[in-house]
Amino acid sequence: MKIMIINPNSDIEMTKAIEKTAENYAKGEFKIICKPTMGGPRFIARYEDHIMSATGMIKLVKENEEKVDGFIIACHSDPNLDLIKEITRKPVVGIAEASMKIASMLGHKFSVISPIEHSIPNKEALVRKYHLQDMLASVRAPKSKDNEWSEEESLTKAAELAVKEDKAEVIVLGCAGMTGLDRIIQKNLSVPVLDGVTCALIILTGLIKYGVSTSKVRRYNPEF
Amino acid sequence: MKIMIINPNSDIEMTKAIEKTAENYAKGEFKIICKPTMGGPRFIARYEDHIMSATGMIKLVKENEEKVDGFIIACHSDPNLDLIKEITRKPVVGIAEASMKIASMLGHKFSVISPIEHSIPNKEALVRKYHLQDMLASVRAPKSKDNEWSEEESLTKAAELAVKEDKAEVIVLGCAGMTGLDRIIQKNLSVPVLDGVTCALIILTGLIKYGVSTSKVRRYNPEF
Amino acid sequence: MKIMIINPNSDIEMTKAIEKTAENYAKGEFKIICKPTMGGPRFIARYEDHIMSATGMIKLVKENEEKVDGFIIACHSDPNLDLIKEITRKPVVGIAEASMKIASMLGHKFSVISPIEHSIPNKEALVRKYHLQDMLASVRAPKSKDNEWSEEESLTKAAELAVKEDKAEVIVLGCAGMTGLDRIIQKNLSVPVLDGVTCALIILTGLIKYGVSTSKVRRYNPEF
Amino acid sequence: MKIMIINPNSDIEMTKAIEKTAENYAKGEFKIICKPTMGGPRFIARYEDHIMSATGMIKLVKENEEKVDGFIIACHSDPNLDLIKEITRKPVVGIAEASMKIASMLGHKFSVISPIEHSIPNKEALVRKYHLQDMLASVRAPKSKDNEWSEEESLTKAAELAVKEDKAEVIVLGCAGMTGLDRIIQKNLSVPVLDGVTCALIILTGLIKYGVSTSKVRRYNPEF
Amino acid sequence: MKIMIINPNSDIEMTKAIEKTAENYAKGEFKIICKPTMGGPRFIARYEDHIMSATGMIKLVKENEEKVDGFIIACHSDPNLDLIKEITRKPVVGIAEASMKIASMLGHKFSVISPIEHSIPNKEALVRKYHLQDMLASVRAPKSKDNEWSEEESLTKAAELAVKEDKAEVIVLGCAGMTGLDRIIQKNLSVPVLDGVTCALIILTGLIKYGVSTSKVRRYNPEF
Amino acid sequence: MKIMIINPNSDIEMTKAIEKTAENYAKGEFKIICKPTMGGPRFIARYEDHIMSATGMIKLVKENEEKVDGFIIACHSDPNLDLIKEITRKPVVGIAEASMKIASMLGHKFSVISPIEHSIPNKEALVRKYHLQDMLASVRAPKSKDNEWSEEESLTKAAELAVKEDKAEVIVLGCAGMTGLDRIIQKNLSVPVLDGVTCALIILTGLIKYGVSTSKVRRYNPEF
Repeated sequence: MKIMIINPNSDIEMTKAIEKTAENYAKGEFKIICKPTMGGPRFIARYEDHIMSATGMIKLVKENEEKVDGFIIACHSDPNLDLIKEITRKPVVGIAEASMKIASMLGHKFSVISPIEHSIPNKEALVRKYHLQDMLASVRAPKSKDNEWSEEESLTKAAELAVKEDKAEVIVLGCAGMTGLDRIIQKNLSVPVLDGVTCALIILTGLIKYGVSTSKVRRYNPEF
Repeated sequence: MKIMIINPNSDIEMTKAIEKTAENYAKGEFKIICKPTMGGPRFIARYEDHIMSATGMIKLVKENEEKVDGFIIACHSDPNLDLIKEITRKPVVGIAEASMKIASMLGHKFSVISPIEHSIPNKEALVRKYHLQDMLASVRAPKSKDNEWSEEESLTKAAELAVKEDKAEVIVLGCAGMTGLDRIIQKNLSVPVLDGVTCALIILTGLIKYGVSTSKVRRYNPEF
Repeated sequence: MKIMIINPNSDIEMTKAIEKTAENYAKGEFKIICKPTMGGPRFIARYEDHIMSATGMIKLVKENEEKVDGFIIACHSDPNLDLIKEITRKPVVGIAEASMKIASMLGHKFSVISPIEHSIPNKEALVRKYHLQDMLASVRAPKSKDNEWSEEESLTKAAELAVKEDKAEVIVLGCAGMTGLDRIIQKNLSVPVLDGVTCALIILTGLIKYGVSTSKVRRYNPEF
Repeated sequence: MKIMIINPNSDIEMTKAIEKTAENYAKGEFKIICKPTMGGPRFIARYEDHIMSATGMIKLVKENEEKVDGFIIACHSDPNLDLIKEITRKPVVGIAEASMKIASMLGHKFSVISPIEHSIPNKEALVRKYHLQDMLASVRAPKSKDNEWSEEESLTKAAELAVKEDKAEVIVLGCAGMTGLDRIIQKNLSVPVLDGVTCALIILTGLIKYGVSTSKVRRYNPEF
Repeated sequence: MKIMIINPNSDIEMTKAIEKTAENYAKGEFKIICKPTMGGPRFIARYEDHIMSATGMIKLVKENEEKVDGFIIACHSDPNLDLIKEITRKPVVGIAEASMKIASMLGHKFSVISPIEHSIPNKEALVRKYHLQDMLASVRAPKSKDNEWSEEESLTKAAELAVKEDKAEVIVLGCAGMTGLDRIIQKNLSVPVLDGVTCALIILTGLIKYGVSTSKVRRYNPEF
Repeated sequence: MKIMIINPNSDIEMTKAIEKTAENYAKGEFKIICKPTMGGPRFIARYEDHIMSATGMIKLVKENEEKVDGFIIACHSDPNLDLIKEITRKPVVGIAEASMKIASMLGHKFSVISPIEHSIPNKEALVRKYHLQDMLASVRAPKSKDNEWSEEESLTKAAELAVKEDKAEVIVLGCAGMTGLDRIIQKNLSVPVLDGVTCALIILTGLIKYGVSTSKVRRYNPEF
């Protein structure tokens, strides 16, 4: 089994971190190709960032469709996910969709920890797109700007508030850039903390093993 | 007042039809610039078509932002509407959003007539995005393939079924390419038939006159 | 074009303020007749107030139907709006429906500023009637009673809290009596502030120009 | 215990039929005063009919508030129900609200049989007002016009279709004028058939015995 | 009329308190048999507690079906309510369903006071099961552990916060063990306070008098 | 990795079929223990069947908790799923929840094929419990009784109708007894057909590999 993980941004560091998480999950049982997106922005937050990534993402999918068994879109905005589901017959999993749907199986309500406040309404819109709005405890972002969002302390604190004040029973890390911090944050909390990349791997490797993929009958049919 | 209408596809004929509808509404009271999108597909139905239009649409907006008072996105999938709302401070109106929200003020439930069956699930997803799913009677497309969708007979028949069987009280024409057929279809039905371009003009000219535009505080803030 | 604005209460001052807002929007391009409702209460807050206004409102509509092109109901409870849509074939717009649906096109979530706390549940019920409950950030009323609700300071403060605490991206002024304060409040905030009378004029003048009106096929059919 | 049943229309025959149903339920255990509404229309279907009833209904409530223990509004559109809940401290029950909420306790989904097709959208709006839209199988009206709606055959047939085609598990008779037909229709069907007047009596006599009434803290507070 | 009230737990004290409430409501007009459940736990909070009660509850129903006219399940988690509705043709009422649906008729929103924080998510899931989630102001539990939940002070305080902060207009006592405290708490608040046992009696005695019961056509059909 | 699959009924044949499906997916990479439930009914359709299974299911979980890494509940009613999630710290997956949530990632809407008509409302209630009601195209059961439900022809025909008439884009096999028929039915249709046992294995093996399980902070906390 060979899986391609597309990081929709062009950040090499983040791509490496994603790959490391994936390899930790894979334990050598399947192959992983992890790529940043040429022409993509350094960080994805705005709708324009989604568009800047699209051409590079399409190129990666079209060039690799025959070589791999499925694709993961490794940005927690699931940019261009409908598009990628449409253009390939191979299964495609977004890290936001996978992590939030798995969260919905592990507890009453979940919170998403967003890297920046700017993304909160966009995340809320995404949660509603996946019909999960009534299982959402909150979307929270670390508040103080002098604390870098990547620092585990600020994320842990935001997650703690989500559990205590918003009554979240599961935490979803809302950025591929937070990958690798799930275990550290979970240690300090009493609830499961989910990394999107790992959750997407759970779904995608399962779909590949099972041999099912996106329905091509209407919504994701590339022809009409 | 000067308005730019962006046809997200590259079809010159359709662009002219849109312009004609707009001029009929404007009656010379404001200026209209109506443009097709360079690099856009001939017809927009798939998610990939949205992406193919994006670069050209951004270019049109950035080049004309200082010259016009607002933008209309004249495709009934509202492609890249969030993006365009984000990148400009000028007001932006999508023909699907405008026509369906006006429909919601004129009757109990509305139906959308889609040009092709392929678009029905995408339209349903769009209706839900605008929180209008409980006011939707149906999305219908003309059934027989030998009848061209642009023919008024096939559209009228689909609209009739929407009124009789689905209990629609208002009809929304679900494609910019249907522009100009509203009055003809309405004559044969007992319900209002809405053209998206005209509805978008109602909202956009009003916003411009009023002097309000997209909120830039979070979701559509281009900076973060 | 001639428009009748019905103030469902009998307050002459408020009627004049509404008329002034309308004339500012009209800039002489169309005629406005603005009338208080004989027999209506001084202020509309309770369900009984809606009923007290009904007979006078019906009278105004029936007497003026042939003389004007459309009606605006200028109270932010939209009292008797279904009734007025039913009894006339001319288009009818309520200032609450118009302002909240326009708000839904300008940002992720909106808040309504209510003149008094008593009206908050009624506003919430109205928002749900229009299927907008999931786009509502909050309904807020100025808290302290010694601050008159009409004072711009107390409204601005309530709007500020709506933006900061409830994450509203758009503010809707929830009373016709607040007309004229939109620009003043907007200056102090970073978000659009919508006046209901102006929003209703945007929709109504557009419908008249377009030549469409309430669907008479079932819900608003005066005969059965 | 003394109960006033207000028939919001002025029809004496229908008022007698309602009274008969109520006496059958009461079996002499409590007193019933059943009144038509002076000035009300002969039949209530349109929003204007609601208004025509309002003044007479208020008069009946205000004149009898001290003499009775509670009120029933005996029209299945629940006309002016919020108003009557607001103006009296005595408990008030509408026959639509009572019958549909009891229906929701007896089966998976219910259908409402409406006397005329015109009322279907209005009933749907009422069902949604009571947050019951997801438990509604359908609103159906007898189809053929030569069959009088009051005839048990046409109602039974509509109810049968609701059970077989719409999968209703409970039938609600959607008009006070159908009172007395519940048992006859139920005999021919395998599901409970609910009469609104009886259902309202269940709730109202219970509230009176219990000693609770409408909350007066905000929404139904007559003062502000 | 003879009614069996099943306390799904085995607590004799609580059973007596429930019986006392029921007798106070009955005033000798109908007979009440109130039984604890053999094999049931002392207190019901967990899903396992529901199962522990089930066998004893089924036994009580099957042994008494011919002797009584209907059943009340007197635990505010409504444990095994679908099951009991399925196995008997006699009407069955759960105290949570009855009290929350009556609450929905008395005010804009209601809050449930839960005995312990542990039950809050379970209550929320129950509220949603009954389609009442949009009428729920909050589920609250008394906070401090040194204050016994049965004490009226701690419950009153929780109810006060529900009214003031969550804008509840009606309070539902969320445990059969709180029975008898409704009047005491109501005295200190300005809103109706509902006891589940009394509310269930209102519905059940009404259904029996009316002669209707659970629909047996599909969902609650014991045979297939 | 060792997984226990609990068939909540006592049918040995069905248990073997489930085991075969599981072994086909496992391909020897992890161990499977597949057990019927002692004391469980032959087939699970009624709420009483859920209860009959409960004691045996609890016993299986408590006896095997230390020996296995996770549990699958292999009946498409997900009987006692909340209970099993509560009583063990090991991850637990229901085949209905897993298959319907995976279906929601593969297409616009899905249909569930139920073995018998009796189960349709119960399935609808289950779908709503998982917040998936707006992604449900339909629940369908094979109609004619002379065609055994286990026959692939009758299931294929029901699935075809779901795709053609209800516009399902994904089919979920709504009974563990249908296991093994997914590929056969899928061959005849143009959409993915999901087997619940396989879908549950995808989720459960992933959770085990990842090292996360049910949140124990509130709803599924066995202590309070």
